[in-house]
Amino acid sequence: MDSQNVEFTSTAKLQSWKEAAAEKKRRQVLSIPKEWVLSNLPSKEEVNVVGFPEACGLLTSREIEITNSEVDILLQKLATGAWSSVDVTTAFSKRAIIAHQLVNCLTEIFIGRALQRAAELDEYLKTNGKPIGPLHGLPISLKDQVSIKGLESTIGYVSCIGRYASKNAVLADILESCGAVLYVKTNVPQTLMWVETYNHIFGRTLNPHNRTLTAGGSSGGEGALIALRGSPLGVGSDIAGSIRVPAAFNGLYALCPSPGRVPYAGCVNTLEGQDSILSSLGPLSSSLSGIKAFLKSVASQKPWLKDPLAINKPWNEDEYQLADHGNGKRLCFAIMWHDEFILPQPPVTRALEATKQALLAAGHQVIDWKPFKHPDIFQALWVIWSAGASEDFGTATALSGEPLVTTMEPDGDNLDSLSPSAPEDRPLPRGLSAYELWQEQKKRRQLREEYLAHWNATITLTDTGRPVDAIVSPCAPFVAPPHGKNNLPPSYTMIWNALNYATLVLPTGLLANPSIDVRKPPHAFFTDLDKATYDFYDPARCAGAPISVQLVGRTSEEEALIAMGEIVDVALKTKVVPAKL
Amino acid sequence: MDSQNVEFTSTAKLQSWKEAAAEKKRRQVLSIPKEWVLSNLPSKEEVNVVGFPEACGLLTSREIEITNSEVDILLQKLATGAWSSVDVTTAFSKRAIIAHQLVNCLTEIFIGRALQRAAELDEYLKTNGKPIGPLHGLPISLKDQVSIKGLESTIGYVSCIGRYASKNAVLADILESCGAVLYVKTNVPQTLMWVETYNHIFGRTLNPHNRTLTAGGSSGGEGALIALRGSPLGVGSDIAGSIRVPAAFNGLYALCPSPGRVPYAGCVNTLEGQDSILSSLGPLSSSLSGIKAFLKSVASQKPWLKDPLAINKPWNEDEYQLADHGNGKRLCFAIMWHDEFILPQPPVTRALEATKQALLAAGHQVIDWKPFKHPDIFQALWVIWSAGASEDFGTATALSGEPLVTTMEPDGDNLDSLSPSAPEDRPLPRGLSAYELWQEQKKRRQLREEYLAHWNATITLTDTGRPVDAIVSPCAPFVAPPHGKNNLPPSYTMIWNALNYATLVLPTGLLANPSIDVRKPPHAFFTDLDKATYDFYDPARCAGAPISVQLVGRTSEEEALIAMGEIVDVALKTKVVPAKL
Repeated sequence: MDSQNVEFTSTAKLQSWKEAAAEKKRRQVLSIPKEWVLSNLPSKEEVNVVGFPEACGLLTSREIEITNSEVDILLQKLATGAWSSVDVTTAFSKRAIIAHQLVNCLTEIFIGRALQRAAELDEYLKTNGKPIGPLHGLPISLKDQVSIKGLESTIGYVSCIGRYASKNAVLADILESCGAVLYVKTNVPQTLMWVETYNHIFGRTLNPHNRTLTAGGSSGGEGALIALRGSPLGVGSDIAGSIRVPAAFNGLYALCPSPGRVPYAGCVNTLEGQDSILSSLGPLSSSLSGIKAFLKSVASQKPWLKDPLAINKPWNEDEYQLADHGNGKRLCFAIMWHDEFILPQPPVTRALEATKQALLAAGHQVIDWKPFKHPDIFQALWVIWSAGASEDFGTATALSGEPLVTTMEPDGDNLDSLSPSAPEDRPLPRGLSAYELWQEQKKRRQLREEYLAHWNATITLTDTGRPVDAIVSPCAPFVAPPHGKNNLPPSYTMIWNALNYATLVLPTGLLANPSIDVRKPPHAFFTDLDKATYDFYDPARCAGAPISVQLVGRTSEEEALIAMGEIVDVALKTKVVPAKL
Repeated sequence: MDSQNVEFTSTAKLQSWKEAAAEKKRRQVLSIPKEWVLSNLPSKEEVNVVGFPEACGLLTSREIEITNSEVDILLQKLATGAWSSVDVTTAFSKRAIIAHQLVNCLTEIFIGRALQRAAELDEYLKTNGKPIGPLHGLPISLKDQVSIKGLESTIGYVSCIGRYASKNAVLADILESCGAVLYVKTNVPQTLMWVETYNHIFGRTLNPHNRTLTAGGSSGGEGALIALRGSPLGVGSDIAGSIRVPAAFNGLYALCPSPGRVPYAGCVNTLEGQDSILSSLGPLSSSLSGIKAFLKSVASQKPWLKDPLAINKPWNEDEYQLADHGNGKRLCFAIMWHDEFILPQPPVTRALEATKQALLAAGHQVIDWKPFKHPDIFQALWVIWSAGASEDFGTATALSGEPLVTTMEPDGDNLDSLSPSAPEDRPLPRGLSAYELWQEQKKRRQLREEYLAHWNATITLTDTGRPVDAIVSPCAPFVAPPHGKNNLPPSYTMIWNALNYATLVLPTGLLANPSIDVRKPPHAFFTDLDKATYDFYDPARCAGAPISVQLVGRTSEEEALIAMGEIVDVALKTKVVPAKL
């Protein structure tokens, strides 16, 4: 231990952050309705818990029906009063609490407040004969970052405990204006800059398909919660893959819009003031209807009049009708089989192949996508984030004295043995000067121009008279890996953040299957990380994990991307028989 | 001279940059058609040269008619073939060359190439019976930054001499797709970060209304050129006032859109990679019809498919019809009489008062605008720019060895006596770290949120049921000052860049008049700069300078802003009798 770090190592401070974390966790336990605490939880050895909520006995058959319904059905039943918001909110709240006991996915739990709001909405519908807005009565879960008046947003930092929001984030206000019922917030990793979910306050979130696997991150709480249908629709955030990785690992639909499409103002964040690569808020759901309802509803509230960074772009129905894509009649999709950085493991490649066959069968053109300078783009991103990240994270942890999490390995962050990290131990290099940062940002801008030209040039490769309509890409080079093992740069998602492209995650209906997804012979490795990924593949370990694909559109093209996603989804459902292990 | 700066002071390098600048200037002289070189130029004592182009004898009466026509008339005559593009291009080219001889406004001159293009367009119209695009045949001038294949963009740096563009900037391509004829580029200050126009290659641009006054900057070449009707429509850029200040000082209409509305990709710039406060490209013109035609035409070419930073926002006719502003029937304008930083001098206040009376007479509501934390916002901007500016400017000047311009005073930059500035002499502080920069950017983001809330809160002050529709603000606290004296931070323009608001400059038809605009007794000064501005006022010195106002709309609200600008313009023209001195 370096003597210079005495500030970080005082016993008083160590105890203090542990006590603060424990006290916060105790308050969380108290916020769980006692009557929903289960005594028949599955043992640790039962790794797949997806079926448990329906089997556990806590939910009535009507509550099972409600929570198994997709967002379009829920909204229709709620708008007509066929189902009351109190009933729907109760059902999802119960199932969320079941989920939490299985996979540890929640942070703030405020069901009493939600039920009161639901009752007001039921009353409104009765009195006025019409819903209050397009999301009338629908429970929506929120990543911990989204501030709600009177609640904390700890975002995985002990130092944020006790900071109660004085007002709602703009998005929370907008969702409430649309009629949503907010009821839980969900777990994240410390710093938000991991693609797994673990912190010193709430611990680790598990993957319900296999609890020995990661739920992904940083919106891992959302991913695990929605996979167990403890929420029909949730909000995550994504600066490198934080919506899409958990969506992919948990078998969900999700949209990562271009920055500014969904208002971010009022959310708590890390790396604040980093104006170059912006994080996006976006929806995760068990159906595309949830994704569409979310975006259309948010846009209907003119978020640009409430958040100075929100883009002035109303829902564009022409774009949704694919006016810029030949009205959707024959599209050209390009499959990116790999990014020339890491070759995907066999389950992922199988899903890409299945998607290709489904799209061909549906009458679309499918060509290969040639990656363009991806390693250069990763490098630019990495340097931009690193420019001040070490100081940012260090400042946030120094406030409480908690150690910086340096690994997501379950044994790597043993609090009993762990000393707070010295600044020089932190995983990111010390910062750049502002001028050096500008040079990196300039490189990124140049690369964005080149990538756009690369995309436009595909017009010579298609038979549609247009450049490629959308790219089909892996979400990650593997399905959900074991805890602590999702430790590579998320190259398949962060590339699109670097380019500000809109992206959509779709489950293929396929699951990793050791009898099909056998190891391939070694290939000529692109990089050391590629070799490590190859070596690391163990078909048995990820058995049953959902396999997803990513659909990539142009900047701010969310409406067209959702419509193209519907086309891919129908094609997959027509062609691909959902797997059962 | 510090011995450390030997690199900057070698005689060889000094001579070399002077020679390079002189050689470039010689090439410019050669690019001027000889038959348009005038021998009857007015003497230096004739300060107002606005009438000279029509009187000098070089222009035919038809050329005078053409060059005195506004953009809507020109486009109509060109589209029908009533006027050929060759004739229109010839007329504006001749007048541009006259203007250049009067006020030194041009950099690149490529009239032969333009006339060839004009002839092709005439041929196209003859063959196809319809114009090639919405700007068919119209000459458009460009600020020096806008790259044109085969030409230089020196942007006031000797080090940029000899760098010939390998391709057009996206905007140049788009304008050509619309049918525009590009024929000249216009002068800028070294670094682009001055609100006057002077550099070591092309020298100083003068104000045609009074050549002892500055034309403003950094788009000063455009301002002076269009004021002399050497161009019907030009493109400037603006990060702190660089479109608006020259427009205001030269009595022109101009639009500074929110960043990204007009594509910037492919332009040459300073402070590149600074991703926080972005410069905007926008039009200057002698009529609002020019402003509207420009924006509508550019948007029609879907710039977001060509520039990754361009916003996906087609021309929105509903917004132009003021759908979000009560269909324009009764608007509420708020006048910002001062920014609590510098009180405007009497001519500017008189123009605000005239605008108020005109708007009231036209049936609109007019209230006062209360500035909100302007000094905090200026400070955030200043620190963000300064974070790497010194290194940026130093790098660009060190390449050639030319001195950094440290004043716009005519006697302050005497090249015979001047030594290159040492890095420590540069006017901006040494940079911040990236993390420190992020903290400033975070402050700015917070201030943007607060300012938006401040604007929204005006709903309680209006009788329209809406918040204030637009703000009427000074463009600067004074009309065009003498050369070297526009040396304050341009607080009245940069505030809106900080907030990403769209802004429009309108001439009021009034001119500074010493017999009306008499000195006021001293007031309680807001700041030292306020006192300096008060002390500096000399009614006689700025006699005859145009007085303009600035109309401020919300982010990306360009269509509505143009429509509201038309309302203000009509009100002013109805109520205010254009002044003659």
